[in-house]
Amino acid sequence: MNGGFRARHLAIVGMGLMGGSLALAMREHADYITGVDSDARAREFALERAIVDQATDDLRAGVNQADVVVLAAPVGVIVEMLQMRIGSYLRSNTLVIDLGSTKQDIVDAMAALPIGIGAVGGHPMTGKENGGINESDDSLYRNRPFVLCPSRRTTPAARLHALSLVETLGALAIEMDAERHDQIVAGISHLPYLLSATLVATVANQAQDDAAYWELAAGGFRDTSRLAASDVRMMGDILSTNTKAVATLLAQFRMQLAMLETMLIAGDDQRLSDSLQPIRLARKNWARDYEDRT
Amino acid sequence: MNGGFRARHLAIVGMGLMGGSLALAMREHADYITGVDSDARAREFALERAIVDQATDDLRAGVNQADVVVLAAPVGVIVEMLQMRIGSYLRSNTLVIDLGSTKQDIVDAMAALPIGIGAVGGHPMTGKENGGINESDDSLYRNRPFVLCPSRRTTPAARLHALSLVETLGALAIEMDAERHDQIVAGISHLPYLLSATLVATVANQAQDDAAYWELAAGGFRDTSRLAASDVRMMGDILSTNTKAVATLLAQFRMQLAMLETMLIAGDDQRLSDSLQPIRLARKNWARDYEDRT
Repeated sequence: MNGGFRARHLAIVGMGLMGGSLALAMREHADYITGVDSDARAREFALERAIVDQATDDLRAGVNQADVVVLAAPVGVIVEMLQMRIGSYLRSNTLVIDLGSTKQDIVDAMAALPIGIGAVGGHPMTGKENGGINESDDSLYRNRPFVLCPSRRTTPAARLHALSLVETLGALAIEMDAERHDQIVAGISHLPYLLSATLVATVANQAQDDAAYWELAAGGFRDTSRLAASDVRMMGDILSTNTKAVATLLAQFRMQLAMLETMLIAGDDQRLSDSLQPIRLARKNWARDYEDRT
Repeated sequence: MNGGFRARHLAIVGMGLMGGSLALAMREHADYITGVDSDARAREFALERAIVDQATDDLRAGVNQADVVVLAAPVGVIVEMLQMRIGSYLRSNTLVIDLGSTKQDIVDAMAALPIGIGAVGGHPMTGKENGGINESDDSLYRNRPFVLCPSRRTTPAARLHALSLVETLGALAIEMDAERHDQIVAGISHLPYLLSATLVATVANQAQDDAAYWELAAGGFRDTSRLAASDVRMMGDILSTNTKAVATLLAQFRMQLAMLETMLIAGDDQRLSDSLQPIRLARKNWARDYEDRT
């Protein structure tokens, strides 16, 4: 089924880990690939490694001959491009897809594109601990979920075109509306990040008076705190475009925490165990399924 | 320096991962090892694999000839043994050390031992995802911190004896009082566990209406939720013997979370980034040091 997707001219806006990896994975499925980035080093690297055929910092020149445009920039930048500039640069019938981590603001902004452009919101659930185009990997998307969210510019043809692109990447397309996507990632990604960062802030505050906190911290702390090391600009961009869903989840988190804390302080060990046991099973069941999938 | 420790008769009460691994690591440093456990399968396994020379379910018979007794049971069981029974079974000059995960209740209970017994609280900062004597590993303690906490029965000789035991295990002795230990582990271990469990409870609650939460959860969720899969009885035992320190840390955690949430909801992206950046650096610095150590 991989023969389905073919681009004459693929333009990728944003030459980081996601954009570079997508270029590598699409090498055999596009006649010509242009990379757009304001960072000269990223452009140079992409050209030297033949990740792209052409690199430019000029958005208009980069996309105006393309039949497929992939927006692989931070969410805020994608929204700004969609609202302000890119629509007038594109040829009719171009497919626009983005790789942003939140979707509502982006699919809303896609409505500003001219009729005749087919635009679909996308979120590949993949990545690496360290970003940058030099980390590019042609298997980054393989076997990972790739959420597709319809916009007012998602024609039936654009939808099929996007599904075919996702299939060509070896990823697993999951279609859902942007609101549902943003609620889900608030729970499985943005809430975990905030908890991880707040845990580190709490321990760091204690450790000001006693460095033994850092000395004794080990594997459990390492896992729970790992997301706190995420890129702050990227996470700020993500959180600020998903405030409502994140705040809603935080309210629910506080309720759940208060229930456990009440049992703990009351010394109600049996009820505490009875509450923790199904949580443990839910985590174990998920982990078993997740390992089977990956 | 490893030649220092010598036991004539080492008794280990509790034949799980910690007790079994300690027996293996002490094989060449004890003339005779007795394992005490109420579980017949654990005793059988320990004998079959020659982890111990003798196994019994009778606490008195297990410890009354020993010159070194290691209590490798849950905290609640250790406290009960110290308060109610074990003192009258022990020979004078016996060294008693425990491996419990919280220390204040245990060192308090050690004061109930007869004068003439040397007793030191111990907490080796090590373990495995899965417990049980069949997971025993003679290198479990190697290069890991092993906290020692004085009790009213810690004579100068008992302290040196315990330090020598820790050194023989290849572990790194860190001496501190029990209150400080319990505050530290509340931050680096018990708070992370509660956050991890509460995260899973929050997501599981959402996932009741939408299974896509589980489908899309990936590496970030996996790391942050890992501790939620911990043994519930063990964690309940630990939390219930460290309630005050855990509740104090939870209050601080809530304050830190409220500060980040306020910036998020206010849309104060710059202040949010400025707050997250030092957290990121603290985590990165700790992880670098931790990896150097391990």
